[in-house]
Amino acid sequence: MPTIVVEVMPKAELLDPQGKAVAGALGRLGKTRFTSVRLGKRFELTVDGHVDDAVLAEVQELADTVLSNSVIEDVVGIHVLEAPAGETH
Amino acid sequence: MPTIVVEVMPKAELLDPQGKAVAGALGRLGKTRFTSVRLGKRFELTVDGHVDDAVLAEVQELADTVLSNSVIEDVVGIHVLEAPAGETH
Repeated sequence: MPTIVVEVMPKAELLDPQGKAVAGALGRLGKTRFTSVRLGKRFELTVDGHVDDAVLAEVQELADTVLSNSVIEDVVGIHVLEAPAGETH
Repeated sequence: MPTIVVEVMPKAELLDPQGKAVAGALGRLGKTRFTSVRLGKRFELTVDGHVDDAVLAEVQELADTVLSNSVIEDVVGIHVLEAPAGETH
């Protein structure tokens, strides 16, 4: 069954405490080439049936209203995977 | 500065309570074509300098050891963005 991936990241102008914590951990490990880390979410929605424009429009609407909080987050990507990530690896 | 994206998902054989909660919410909204939802993480690492094979190998190692917990999660993707997601949108 096809899977639609929705990627959500904290808005660029906001502090991202989780990302900052990861960046701090990398610094303490001596990984100094990474100047910043941001941490967002990756949803995999499994669709029963074919993915057409209507399904993608519905996912776009859900991404903007349910899967992300538009006050603090941006939807940065929506794309279709034919097989779930676990099967492609 | 280039950004490297690392995508981490809960292993397929594990229950994903956050994903289940989202799937339940979609069902209550009448969005019945989505049969399952899984929720993972998306890291954006900003790199100071060029991305070469050594940097990618370092990110792969960090992804496997620091950014994911290999007991419960899989690293499903590592790719390079030339501009951070916020700037491409």
